[in-house]
Amino acid sequence: MSSEMKDITMPIYEGMMVYKNKPEKQFKSIQRATHAENGYHEGSVCMDLHTGTHIDMPLHVIDGGADSTHFDTDSVNGPCVVVDFSKETSRAVDANFLKKQSILEGDIVLIKTKNSYAEAFDFEFDFLEASGAVYLRDLQVKAVGIDALGIERNQPGQPTHKALLGNGIYIIEGLALKAVESGRYLFHCFPLKIMGVEGLPARAFLSPLPEEEK
Amino acid sequence: MSSEMKDITMPIYEGMMVYKNKPEKQFKSIQRATHAENGYHEGSVCMDLHTGTHIDMPLHVIDGGADSTHFDTDSVNGPCVVVDFSKETSRAVDANFLKKQSILEGDIVLIKTKNSYAEAFDFEFDFLEASGAVYLRDLQVKAVGIDALGIERNQPGQPTHKALLGNGIYIIEGLALKAVESGRYLFHCFPLKIMGVEGLPARAFLSPLPEEEK
Repeated sequence: MSSEMKDITMPIYEGMMVYKNKPEKQFKSIQRATHAENGYHEGSVCMDLHTGTHIDMPLHVIDGGADSTHFDTDSVNGPCVVVDFSKETSRAVDANFLKKQSILEGDIVLIKTKNSYAEAFDFEFDFLEASGAVYLRDLQVKAVGIDALGIERNQPGQPTHKALLGNGIYIIEGLALKAVESGRYLFHCFPLKIMGVEGLPARAFLSPLPEEEK
Repeated sequence: MSSEMKDITMPIYEGMMVYKNKPEKQFKSIQRATHAENGYHEGSVCMDLHTGTHIDMPLHVIDGGADSTHFDTDSVNGPCVVVDFSKETSRAVDANFLKKQSILEGDIVLIKTKNSYAEAFDFEFDFLEASGAVYLRDLQVKAVGIDALGIERNQPGQPTHKALLGNGIYIIEGLALKAVESGRYLFHCFPLKIMGVEGLPARAFLSPLPEEEK
């Protein structure tokens, strides 16, 4: 960890933007003890596992898929490329767009879209279309991140999630990429170590690539 | 992040060991959607901010102290020394013990104790006595971590917390140090980015020091 690390995590607070503005997705902070009454300050939180920046496990969309118990953080750490879709008029990141980017086998691919500029939940959010997911799967990328709270929308059967999670490619949703330029970086992502669940809230950073890897 | 990173985070699950076995500290997982009923798997969690591996903010013990809003992860990342108290018969880590360790100004100090071997909550847990906290404060260490779920016990007025948090030295509690030997490392600690609270659940790792820093 150095001061060269750029934090690309969504802040978590009551009233934050959540997927489709669903109340059950909202973050809640419960204060149990205060200085005035107890001499110390202490509280709890309740949160959806897909609130803010988080990693989807295969179990989320695949019946019998792996949960978080044996999740290895190496799966979401390493060299990455940020591709910029934010200036496209389309809302669907497809294979055609991705083919024009400099994505290498083994890369963690972070997709910056118009979502990073939205101040309220946009029901027509930019998403990774199935053709794009299949392209990234065939390219054998390591993981895929996006600044949407869901990586796909209106695709029956969740083909984007399944093309990736069904092939060992983890998905990071809810990244904050507004201040990030396209290019190559190192991606660092550290989820809570919760066992047995289908999603893991996480902290995420970018740092410059070491000189020898440029 | 490399495979040289050793995870020193407590796993989080229902029934995990919590401070004084208090029910309100227990982790709860709430499953809201299942493959059988909904076609996907989704849930929420409720947890005390001091459950498992976490960082205390000054607000926890200091009325008007800083909360997590502007917490800088640099405060808990950097060169560290693990000191081994696990073979001592005493339960109180005091200045006398710490003076015999090779702790440098600016170090993150991690205290390995008998707590790392406890399989159930030990009400007589090893803790950092006020004299030890004052010693580390005067040495101007960067942060202090311990494998206890509380860094002190039975000290009226919480002098250990206050000596550290009152002087910009963050406290990391609930580290899992059983498999760690004493010595020098790099410490990596990444909490959730929750705003306005007095404690932050976190992921923590150790990695070898780079050759030039040994």
